[in-house]
Amino acid sequence: MSLLTIESTRSGFVESVHRVSVAVTDMEGKLVASAGEPGLVTFWRSSAKPFQALPLVMDGAADRWSFGTRELALACASHSSEPGHRELAEAMLRACGCEEGQLACGPHPPLNPAVAEEVARGGVKLTPKWSNCSGKHTGMLALARHHGWPTEGYSRLDHPVQERILQEVCRWTGVARGELRLGVDGCTAVCFGLPLAAMATAYARLGTSQEPAARRLREALWAHPALVAGTGRLCTELMTACRGTVLAKVGAEGVYSAALPTLGLGVTLKVEDGDGRCSPPALLAVLRQVLARAGQPLPVEGLTHHVEPVLRNTRGEVIGSLRAAGELRFH
Amino acid sequence: MSLLTIESTRSGFVESVHRVSVAVTDMEGKLVASAGEPGLVTFWRSSAKPFQALPLVMDGAADRWSFGTRELALACASHSSEPGHRELAEAMLRACGCEEGQLACGPHPPLNPAVAEEVARGGVKLTPKWSNCSGKHTGMLALARHHGWPTEGYSRLDHPVQERILQEVCRWTGVARGELRLGVDGCTAVCFGLPLAAMATAYARLGTSQEPAARRLREALWAHPALVAGTGRLCTELMTACRGTVLAKVGAEGVYSAALPTLGLGVTLKVEDGDGRCSPPALLAVLRQVLARAGQPLPVEGLTHHVEPVLRNTRGEVIGSLRAAGELRFH
Repeated sequence: MSLLTIESTRSGFVESVHRVSVAVTDMEGKLVASAGEPGLVTFWRSSAKPFQALPLVMDGAADRWSFGTRELALACASHSSEPGHRELAEAMLRACGCEEGQLACGPHPPLNPAVAEEVARGGVKLTPKWSNCSGKHTGMLALARHHGWPTEGYSRLDHPVQERILQEVCRWTGVARGELRLGVDGCTAVCFGLPLAAMATAYARLGTSQEPAARRLREALWAHPALVAGTGRLCTELMTACRGTVLAKVGAEGVYSAALPTLGLGVTLKVEDGDGRCSPPALLAVLRQVLARAGQPLPVEGLTHHVEPVLRNTRGEVIGSLRAAGELRFH
Repeated sequence: MSLLTIESTRSGFVESVHRVSVAVTDMEGKLVASAGEPGLVTFWRSSAKPFQALPLVMDGAADRWSFGTRELALACASHSSEPGHRELAEAMLRACGCEEGQLACGPHPPLNPAVAEEVARGGVKLTPKWSNCSGKHTGMLALARHHGWPTEGYSRLDHPVQERILQEVCRWTGVARGELRLGVDGCTAVCFGLPLAAMATAYARLGTSQEPAARRLREALWAHPALVAGTGRLCTELMTACRGTVLAKVGAEGVYSAALPTLGLGVTLKVEDGDGRCSPPALLAVLRQVLARAGQPLPVEGLTHHVEPVLRNTRGEVIGSLRAAGELRFH
């Protein structure tokens, strides 16, 4: 077993260690590289969002409500609650004849620190559109409206929206419905527990599939990386720097999935303890190693703050960093 | 090697896993029980505070400035920035002829959620007395003033205050000066890297020592647990429930140290990834196992929210918990 870790340093010494499990697979699900336990079963969290958005395109709801690349990017997003994200969510709700009160996602401190500070100062009431998942939830409402299903309870397991999404999750991951662990996500929607390697396989397929819906989602993510996450975040900066060669989507609790379409590979990693500060440096370490082996260096010039994020003390002094250690095992 | 973990669950499944290393030793440093790597070298962080406060008592500074049990409790504290904590820090500064501007600790969001919310709403400027370490820093200034040392730079390694503290850290832990890793803590003070087992030994000694300074610190911590941490926090609630039988002091990055004077034992644990949400349930799991073996059950009735803290989603629904799994190995 190969060991990949993110080390948290202080004054030049390692203070804490985060273990990372990684699966890199091809489109057939063959394990190409790994670290830790590539078969680890955990929840996919927001890295599943592109697959939760697929029925929207496949079933004709996106065309019905005139959702273009911007709207599809937001449907796949864990956005930072920036004004553009909130306005687009509202516009999507209007387009499919819904309103914000129908969103089942709860509010949380925004992922953009400046927006979070503004909110903390008061005077702003956090409503569901502020949720980083409001695009996904709006997409679910749009799917329900398109099919004439009730909008009530759309985020719960017994609703046809979730049944439809489950079909796609099973089809792309190759995991049978009975093998999936089903849970409740941070936003109340259904979330999916399955092996990292199966998540990676779904991304390998998403990155290369010639199905029109997959092509449209890829185009949407690469056309509007700023809508998929937000200012300063890795999904946004990586897909801006690597348009056409890297698709990447973060999830909560230390999950990150990516596709490398030019290599026909998919990647999913899990920081075993769930620390979301560590999944960006872990993803970059994995992508660098996989791409380097293929002779395709990752352009990381603009991403160094994600490669080794600095840690500061209460006086603002740099006291250490989060840095990747260890190598993938190539099979 | 015995494995102790804190599992983070979602919808009944384990989503993330935190490994915990534990050392339980007697006063001679003999390893009595362990999990993971009891020899793991990491920074002691705020669990070292009682030893940083010892010179204050030993050298006569506490008597000189009329610091009683309340002031000594705050000197050992990682407090929650509640009004009583801040006022006491200010009173201590005045007593030793210092002022707040001389404190080297930086501010941070208060550990009491209600106080933090009040601060976030604005109108309050965070100043050094708000730091959870302001009692420790005031104690360091009081020591400098007592000895006639300059107050400037008191938190840095080349200052006599830190040299004096280092003597005590070495004496109680049994680790030679040259073997200590020295770092910069979150509050700018010197922090100490050493094996968990040596930290545990220092606590075993602190809990049982007949030296007057150790006795006075124990009395202070047990007399005023609310000053050592704050409302709802484990150090406060545990020392309230177990006055005289458990001394406990949390540190940042998943460290927790405790003394069990009636058994002559000391405990230190480190959540290897540094997650501070996991060190309270980990400490309670360790104390329960150690005390149960001695036929002394830990009174945990009022502490169940620390034994297995619940996790909620953005709608406030309980989606899982943090729970301890695994057993200590007794040697």
